Amino acid sequence: MSAFSRKLLGEAIGSLLLFATVVGSGIMAERLAGGNLAVALLGNTLATGAILYVLITMLRPVSGAQFNPAVTLVMRLRGECCWKGAALVVLAQVAAGVLGVWLAHAMFDLPILQVSAKARTGMGQWLGEFVATFGLVLTILGTLRHKPEAVPVSVALYIVAGYWFTSSTSFANPAITIARSLSDSFAGIAPPDVPGFIAAQLAGALTAHLLALGLFPDRG
Amino acid sequence: MSAFSRKLLGEAIGSLLLFATVVGSGIMAERLAGGNLAVALLGNTLATGAILYVLITMLRPVSGAQFNPAVTLVMRLRGECCWKGAALVVLAQVAAGVLGVWLAHAMFDLPILQVSAKARTGMGQWLGEFVATFGLVLTILGTLRHKPEAVPVSVALYIVAGYWFTSSTSFANPAITIARSLSDSFAGIAPPDVPGFIAAQLAGALTAHLLALGLFPDRG
Amino acid sequence: MSAFSRKLLGEAIGSLLLFATVVGSGIMAERLAGGNLAVALLGNTLATGAILYVLITMLRPVSGAQFNPAVTLVMRLRGECCWKGAALVVLAQVAAGVLGVWLAHAMFDLPILQVSAKARTGMGQWLGEFVATFGLVLTILGTLRHKPEAVPVSVALYIVAGYWFTSSTSFANPAITIARSLSDSFAGIAPPDVPGFIAAQLAGALTAHLLALGLFPDRG
Amino acid sequence: MSAFSRKLLGEAIGSLLLFATVVGSGIMAERLAGGNLAVALLGNTLATGAILYVLITMLRPVSGAQFNPAVTLVMRLRGECCWKGAALVVLAQVAAGVLGVWLAHAMFDLPILQVSAKARTGMGQWLGEFVATFGLVLTILGTLRHKPEAVPVSVALYIVAGYWFTSSTSFANPAITIARSLSDSFAGIAPPDVPGFIAAQLAGALTAHLLALGLFPDRG
Repeated sequence: MSAFSRKLLGEAIGSLLLFATVVGSGIMAERLAGGNLAVALLGNTLATGAILYVLITMLRPVSGAQFNPAVTLVMRLRGECCWKGAALVVLAQVAAGVLGVWLAHAMFDLPILQVSAKARTGMGQWLGEFVATFGLVLTILGTLRHKPEAVPVSVALYIVAGYWFTSSTSFANPAITIARSLSDSFAGIAPPDVPGFIAAQLAGALTAHLLALGLFPDRG
Repeated sequence: MSAFSRKLLGEAIGSLLLFATVVGSGIMAERLAGGNLAVALLGNTLATGAILYVLITMLRPVSGAQFNPAVTLVMRLRGECCWKGAALVVLAQVAAGVLGVWLAHAMFDLPILQVSAKARTGMGQWLGEFVATFGLVLTILGTLRHKPEAVPVSVALYIVAGYWFTSSTSFANPAITIARSLSDSFAGIAPPDVPGFIAAQLAGALTAHLLALGLFPDRG
Repeated sequence: MSAFSRKLLGEAIGSLLLFATVVGSGIMAERLAGGNLAVALLGNTLATGAILYVLITMLRPVSGAQFNPAVTLVMRLRGECCWKGAALVVLAQVAAGVLGVWLAHAMFDLPILQVSAKARTGMGQWLGEFVATFGLVLTILGTLRHKPEAVPVSVALYIVAGYWFTSSTSFANPAITIARSLSDSFAGIAPPDVPGFIAAQLAGALTAHLLALGLFPDRG
Repeated sequence: MSAFSRKLLGEAIGSLLLFATVVGSGIMAERLAGGNLAVALLGNTLATGAILYVLITMLRPVSGAQFNPAVTLVMRLRGECCWKGAALVVLAQVAAGVLGVWLAHAMFDLPILQVSAKARTGMGQWLGEFVATFGLVLTILGTLRHKPEAVPVSVALYIVAGYWFTSSTSFANPAITIARSLSDSFAGIAPPDVPGFIAAQLAGALTAHLLALGLFPDRG
């Protein structure tokens, strides 16, 4: 298998397991929590943070472990590889991510094909997604610059915090936003609300990219 | 004491403490949670993840810290030791694990000998065990390949996530499946449902083994 | 950008994200917890501890990642930089921290300008703030002396513990005390109670500073 | 200050902050949890595990960070220092630990002097304390032998697990058992039940000490 095939496969497997965890743990948490949504969010948070550490640690040497088109875009802008490679990576993230959501549905004996009815919209939540993705990309770029071995822990803990401090619960990822629109569960988002979230995410990612050029300059 | 005796003793003590933790924390959590099963699962998850890190860190240099016949099988297929050694290790895991379950019962003043009445069956849960064990074995093989010092954290956090994102709450271990059938508590599984779980676990482990040959090739 | 400008910018961004997390996760937790304040505090704790690790890891090489005038004061007393530099850093912490609180309000569609009505006063809580800040500064100085790479984890976990073991829930930071007086939410503090908290915090910080001179002497 | 004075001071400060955390977080958790004892134990667990990591990391280079007469005894049996030194260390642990409990009471505006009325007795709980202390000492000895830098994390996580998987919630420490008898709160133990707990703890510690001689032999 070529290194690029392994990269695509790594991004696909990581996105599949990550998105299955986000949606699956949301289903489990909501089922068990008896209506206490804070308890449900604790379970959802714990599972998401834990799997992020695991997947980034395991797959970073193979694929870069981005699992997120906003991150892939910023890395491309910083000179990584090429537009065609980035496009294929994003395709793998979205396609495998959707499979991950369907896998979660299958595990919980739910209909595979669903569409979310959960409204997530408005200035507050868009600001939430802007802040969430801004902070995520800044964390990745700053930590990569000064302490790259801490990236798996930092990304996992950033999302743990983001699930609680942003009003939108930090999707912070266009691929997961699309995939979550296909699940009518705790973690879902109604399809009409997807473009607003993705626009806010990309704006946040690009703002962090620009700030990082000044705040974390290269040594050279 | 010979190195192999220490290996068997290490696997036995680790399996005993691990299985006592899984079952004991389930009993404690269910007793205290007042019917909120998500809160009970949070306590069960925290204890299981914590002890996994502790035991793997302490016992890996002595025994390999597998505590899991599915992992022992995959390591044998990858060339570790021999079939007779693997069989003795599995025997130690199962026997000591059952003692661990009985120890938990004794600590909580429950009848030592029990049989679980908790049905855990059906396509969704079998798929859950397949995914759970697939992900566990892939995590071990990928992390061993690229960052072996992270194995204790990664295995612990994988199971933390697995308790929430799989419909079966990630037994992911044939020895613990057998041992949990002997506890009529939160963590139990009815004996007739054991073979289905173990078959799904072994299928998941072997699939991860094959995938890892392509995804994490040796440097050589 | 000069190194000192980057230091100010780093302290500002860190304080903004930290204080937005403290207040934002408090709002989220209280909204979802259905009146169970222990569950709300679990969410608030998890988010605060997580973001502390992330921000200290990312920004320490840039700004020192203090985000706290009591820490900045102690570092000045130990010989770091100069009074004018310290004053500018404190100004950045307070100003950006207030912006962080307002950002949290905006994300949750709340009025930006608020004043807390939450009474936090009395000998017990002042003692709580004394102990909280004493322990925080002692942790920073002792860990810096013997194992500096553990500072991000130790500070994060100290605050996790402090949220639970001190009666005041460990503000332990004059800047965050001022900023939290501007939020009428879970994390708020009524403005008349701010001076008592800050006095107790500074007394605790100075006590830890003196003790550390004897307990953690320099090698020289 | 001599190295031995610093050792005593370190053990005293560590025991004071540790025991204040155990008791203080128990009070906070019980007050907020609205009767859900599993939620209260989650808060108590989180705070105890977090402060254990912080204190062991900060104070190990100064005092050894034992905070526990059972551990001090085992270290003496393994050849550390001398009986007189060990006795002074234990005295510092108990005396400062009691001060820590009183500090918790003062922070929460409770009467300083209390006596616990909480019965903790019976074969199940004694077995719990035996197992808890056995596992703690085995963890310390095995981790010190093979991966000493992991001791702070392993001890913290062992106690996190122990709070849930043992029926006695893992006191695992004679000094904390005495100190907790002086608090009529969540973490208390009635004075008549103290000797049974301490006897079980010492038996568990000695058993682990003997096992470790065979399981973790010195390289030499």
